[in-house]
Amino acid sequence: MGDLFWPGDDRAGDHFTSESFLEAMVAVEEEWAGVDLDGVVGPDHLEWLENESEVGGNPVIGLVERLRDGTGIARLHRGLTSQDVVDSALMRMAEAAVADLLGDLDRIVDGLAALATAHRDTPMVARTLTQHAIPTTFGFRVAQWLTGVLDARDDVRRLAFPAQLGGAAGTRAGMVELGRDVALDPLPWHTTRASVTRIGDALAGCTDACGRIANDVLAMGRPELGELAEGSGGGSSTMPNKANPVLSVLVRRAALTTPQLAATLHLAAASQVDDRADGGWHAEWATLRDLVRRTLVAVSQTHDLLDGLEVRPDRMARTLAGAGDDVLAEQRSLAEQAGHDPAPSYLGQAGAIVDAVVHRATVPNTLPKTQENR
Amino acid sequence: MGDLFWPGDDRAGDHFTSESFLEAMVAVEEEWAGVDLDGVVGPDHLEWLENESEVGGNPVIGLVERLRDGTGIARLHRGLTSQDVVDSALMRMAEAAVADLLGDLDRIVDGLAALATAHRDTPMVARTLTQHAIPTTFGFRVAQWLTGVLDARDDVRRLAFPAQLGGAAGTRAGMVELGRDVALDPLPWHTTRASVTRIGDALAGCTDACGRIANDVLAMGRPELGELAEGSGGGSSTMPNKANPVLSVLVRRAALTTPQLAATLHLAAASQVDDRADGGWHAEWATLRDLVRRTLVAVSQTHDLLDGLEVRPDRMARTLAGAGDDVLAEQRSLAEQAGHDPAPSYLGQAGAIVDAVVHRATVPNTLPKTQENR
Amino acid sequence: MGDLFWPGDDRAGDHFTSESFLEAMVAVEEEWAGVDLDGVVGPDHLEWLENESEVGGNPVIGLVERLRDGTGIARLHRGLTSQDVVDSALMRMAEAAVADLLGDLDRIVDGLAALATAHRDTPMVARTLTQHAIPTTFGFRVAQWLTGVLDARDDVRRLAFPAQLGGAAGTRAGMVELGRDVALDPLPWHTTRASVTRIGDALAGCTDACGRIANDVLAMGRPELGELAEGSGGGSSTMPNKANPVLSVLVRRAALTTPQLAATLHLAAASQVDDRADGGWHAEWATLRDLVRRTLVAVSQTHDLLDGLEVRPDRMARTLAGAGDDVLAEQRSLAEQAGHDPAPSYLGQAGAIVDAVVHRATVPNTLPKTQENR
Amino acid sequence: MGDLFWPGDDRAGDHFTSESFLEAMVAVEEEWAGVDLDGVVGPDHLEWLENESEVGGNPVIGLVERLRDGTGIARLHRGLTSQDVVDSALMRMAEAAVADLLGDLDRIVDGLAALATAHRDTPMVARTLTQHAIPTTFGFRVAQWLTGVLDARDDVRRLAFPAQLGGAAGTRAGMVELGRDVALDPLPWHTTRASVTRIGDALAGCTDACGRIANDVLAMGRPELGELAEGSGGGSSTMPNKANPVLSVLVRRAALTTPQLAATLHLAAASQVDDRADGGWHAEWATLRDLVRRTLVAVSQTHDLLDGLEVRPDRMARTLAGAGDDVLAEQRSLAEQAGHDPAPSYLGQAGAIVDAVVHRATVPNTLPKTQENR
Repeated sequence: MGDLFWPGDDRAGDHFTSESFLEAMVAVEEEWAGVDLDGVVGPDHLEWLENESEVGGNPVIGLVERLRDGTGIARLHRGLTSQDVVDSALMRMAEAAVADLLGDLDRIVDGLAALATAHRDTPMVARTLTQHAIPTTFGFRVAQWLTGVLDARDDVRRLAFPAQLGGAAGTRAGMVELGRDVALDPLPWHTTRASVTRIGDALAGCTDACGRIANDVLAMGRPELGELAEGSGGGSSTMPNKANPVLSVLVRRAALTTPQLAATLHLAAASQVDDRADGGWHAEWATLRDLVRRTLVAVSQTHDLLDGLEVRPDRMARTLAGAGDDVLAEQRSLAEQAGHDPAPSYLGQAGAIVDAVVHRATVPNTLPKTQENR
Repeated sequence: MGDLFWPGDDRAGDHFTSESFLEAMVAVEEEWAGVDLDGVVGPDHLEWLENESEVGGNPVIGLVERLRDGTGIARLHRGLTSQDVVDSALMRMAEAAVADLLGDLDRIVDGLAALATAHRDTPMVARTLTQHAIPTTFGFRVAQWLTGVLDARDDVRRLAFPAQLGGAAGTRAGMVELGRDVALDPLPWHTTRASVTRIGDALAGCTDACGRIANDVLAMGRPELGELAEGSGGGSSTMPNKANPVLSVLVRRAALTTPQLAATLHLAAASQVDDRADGGWHAEWATLRDLVRRTLVAVSQTHDLLDGLEVRPDRMARTLAGAGDDVLAEQRSLAEQAGHDPAPSYLGQAGAIVDAVVHRATVPNTLPKTQENR
Repeated sequence: MGDLFWPGDDRAGDHFTSESFLEAMVAVEEEWAGVDLDGVVGPDHLEWLENESEVGGNPVIGLVERLRDGTGIARLHRGLTSQDVVDSALMRMAEAAVADLLGDLDRIVDGLAALATAHRDTPMVARTLTQHAIPTTFGFRVAQWLTGVLDARDDVRRLAFPAQLGGAAGTRAGMVELGRDVALDPLPWHTTRASVTRIGDALAGCTDACGRIANDVLAMGRPELGELAEGSGGGSSTMPNKANPVLSVLVRRAALTTPQLAATLHLAAASQVDDRADGGWHAEWATLRDLVRRTLVAVSQTHDLLDGLEVRPDRMARTLAGAGDDVLAEQRSLAEQAGHDPAPSYLGQAGAIVDAVVHRATVPNTLPKTQENR
Repeated sequence: MGDLFWPGDDRAGDHFTSESFLEAMVAVEEEWAGVDLDGVVGPDHLEWLENESEVGGNPVIGLVERLRDGTGIARLHRGLTSQDVVDSALMRMAEAAVADLLGDLDRIVDGLAALATAHRDTPMVARTLTQHAIPTTFGFRVAQWLTGVLDARDDVRRLAFPAQLGGAAGTRAGMVELGRDVALDPLPWHTTRASVTRIGDALAGCTDACGRIANDVLAMGRPELGELAEGSGGGSSTMPNKANPVLSVLVRRAALTTPQLAATLHLAAASQVDDRADGGWHAEWATLRDLVRRTLVAVSQTHDLLDGLEVRPDRMARTLAGAGDDVLAEQRSLAEQAGHDPAPSYLGQAGAIVDAVVHRATVPNTLPKTQENR
């Protein structure tokens, strides 16, 4: 797996590949039928199955035919409908991908907490609307990055990946006819797609957080600022002098594309009609795949970006010094108003905020598994 | 307030009008300074303030000038920055709007629970990919609508609306200089915008749920189906015969637009850089306004739509009868395979699923106020 | 090539595959250097190249290294920059894809023109906002489909696919240093991306036109309407009775996703900065790929859909008859006002409009190659 | 008119206000009926009309009632349908807005052509992926800005604004019944919306071009670069030292939001069904309004931004000098390969490209009014 159009794509590994999709669908059928389907279908059938998937509108019809032919077990799939298999497979894949994603997020959180702590008192200039504002610390900046990642992680942690078991029209009529005892929970969700849109929203939240970090590395890594640098920049095909912030660029790339993918999932959800949508459902699959893979790639790249990040306190100090008295203009104005001399430093609660964010990062996951996301 | 380009806009009342924005900003300044600013600015200043808002890039600079001029109190706003006031005002407005939204969602939930119960056993044909599938009940369909609304409500209930208190660059340096004691929680979130994107995502979830209901009313209200009708359809400017499903049309309209607005909020979040974004922040205000107002309108219209909904069990029965044996083909096939005669009905767990969803609708809000959304 | 997540994907053939991308880039280098690079790189190098593409941020750096190593020709690529090769390759691929797309559009145009002509006088009921309006003809409806396709085709025909020849920063400094004579036209367009956004917009226009056709087939193919049917519907994994309008569903799927991809191309264009964007450029490649392939698939599916479309004038007539006098209410009201008896039919210019649209379809492509799209 | 949520909104003047919408609709009715409707409805009726617009789903039904009541002329509107009036009014408003837009674009083109010429030979460092690349000129950079604006202007110039005259279902049955002679061209376009999506795409192209300029001013205006500055920066509510690049920030804001609005117009087009869409049509009005107004504002702000732009050749020269020999590494490498000493300068065709772009800017509008956009 790889994608020349999306450098770094292989970081997403086998998540949401056609092969994985096939495996996940087989696993769903396997579990439902209680039989071992190992080896009945495999990568060799992919091309055939892809063709069949257009005939039926989804890959399950061809798959079931092949599974039955290959095993002689006619009762395979009985009681299920195509959407049960596709949706359950998507959720299995999503759950596996999110597990890896959380691992990467955890590593980023640990790294950022350490970075924020290390630079808790490293002075630099704060910038608002691109211009010098007042003094701050690099630790404070990193605490903002960390907050973004923690917020994103909270949303990811809260995701649920319900199996889909509804039968032809969600009523489980076939299952009951067959005497299968199916627990009510989770209820069928053929046409209520919050499980899908929540994944999309949470993943977009991840690339938001990563994109924001990349933006700072790109801005502070401009040679004229020089306060940050990617440890090992990428080269150029023609300029021997270049060391490009490639990871930041690629992370930023992802952040520009995922919001529209998440929007497509909402549009698909809003297009539901009847007991199975006439296109809205089908629009989800590739969209979710792209969202998941791009987020995995972006988060992994952000991890490496941070891992190799060069922080240059000397340049930060030089910029701050160069900014001169201007960045203390607010302090002087406030001190004068308050009738006292300006305090010796002007960092406010920067340190305490760093400490609070770092503390939040160390709190174990205590998110309750609430009713609606079990 | 009203908008000829968005029929029904006035249902959103005063939420997120320019006037409300001004009031909310004044309330933030009032609370911060501990003074009464009643009557210092009002609608008469709006035009001037709008002009000033371009000079400064946001409305606060002009507002503070006017407030100080009007009161002679120079210490107004001291310690705050523009973003504190705008963000806090947006959150105040959002909180008020969401309170109203939840009220409407609650009413819809109650209505749908009653409707699902009333039609728990009303037979109709299930449709998948627009075609007749198997028998179902209208109650089951309504239970799907209800599930969508409950999922959306869960996400709305979980929203938090933190005040923004960060000062010039989020470090609260000015506040400390002034000797103001500000609690750490909520931490400043100038450049970490999950509070905003979560609102956008949750609101898009609401229009998803409403849009899906509208789609069904539109499809089932086609004269050839005739199973549902808007109680009082809209007329035509030229055709005396028309009774248009206007509310459904307008709800569907909203559902086509909000996902892209929510995406814009994510893009804005992903565009954060430095200690205040150079455009990403400013892109949020009107986007959030439109999202909030359109969601309020769509949810209110959905309420009215459901309130006046005509359900025609006779037409449902006639369609089902007309569909004939075909819709029992699956049952026959499964029964044959299972070696028994088809059961007398083929509704599976439809009734139990209705009951379970209705039960969920009656469970009081027990969502914990978890750490990250306080 | 195939994609289990996007049934029908193989209809797009080799367009914009990783292999084609590689070939196109090699062709660019070949043409620039005036040497034969046949066989130097191939599919076997793809995995390696994908890895390298992340190191350099794009695939060219690794490719050039490999081409030089494999040929010993050091002057390969000299004077170019990575973006020249990627952009030129994207445009070559787009041009080839659009040629195929235009072929399919032409076939659809011919088919629709014939269909409109055949049903120029086939009466049916017009529907507005889902409700019966007045009488119309199926030919008139098809003329609307045709107009949509013609409008889309006009925009596609107008596309241009300029090569990119700018060198390191667009100034062609290296080319001049090497004594290469490069014509000014086309000018370098490293950071002005209208060539890309126009493709995106035109392709979205194609799926708009196809989606609109699919929507009608889906609506009019509901069994209760039964006026249209896909010739060979898709089956179900569980319901023997189903004949699903699979092609329409898959076309509609595409139409729900491409607008957001086109939006991403605009965002990428709007994110240009400096002499090469820090992410905006990189976001284009996969987005353009997906837009092109999905449009090719949707247009091809629309062709097949129309090719096999079953039109049922009897059902159209029956619906119209069933609608009764109501659909002549407007006519009666207007005739009364005009002081005469209603005319015997009420089809207005329907026939003339069909003729005019069909005529437009037969006019040869006379779009001028204007200055800006040469 | 003004909008506290969108600073600068008043730059869009009366374009696409509710009042203008009302006036445009009245003008359509006036022209159709050949009567003078001056003073029959006005701003006082807006609130009532807004309410009525929800009852009927669009503003025309109430408007016609009011016009008939106010004049006693029953034949008003006869033969038209609501969509004729709304669509024609939208096109009238769009045409007027685009005329103003083109005026502003022309002014920007003139300004940029002069700026590019003035700095044709002003040396600065080229930057790719945020890093120093090779030498370039500021004139070359401006020529890129200019190219973006010229490309955008070409697309805007090509727009057409057809009136909508279709009657109840697009067949003009009522008009024929009334004996009205209506020319075939333009054909009715009730359900084929390229006229709308093309406007959206072209406007997004404008904000792309403006956003790209703003990005450069923001980047090069960072104090550490200091090569550009907004002539009169905006102040801060708390920091006396700040001079913020407010116009650039507000332009960038717009560029982040319009692509998603243009996508919504495509989604609306793709949602067409029957002879009038059940929501897709209604989603266009406010979306088009926002797109038009935001583009007008962004283009006007870009004009002012450029008008007041401070260019600092000394800082450009200093940066280039500071970049040292590194930025000539490519030249040395190429010269060595070519076997000669590096040329004294390394600006390639920069000057010639500036001249070519400036020349293009001065060519009068010769875009043919082609068949499909008349």
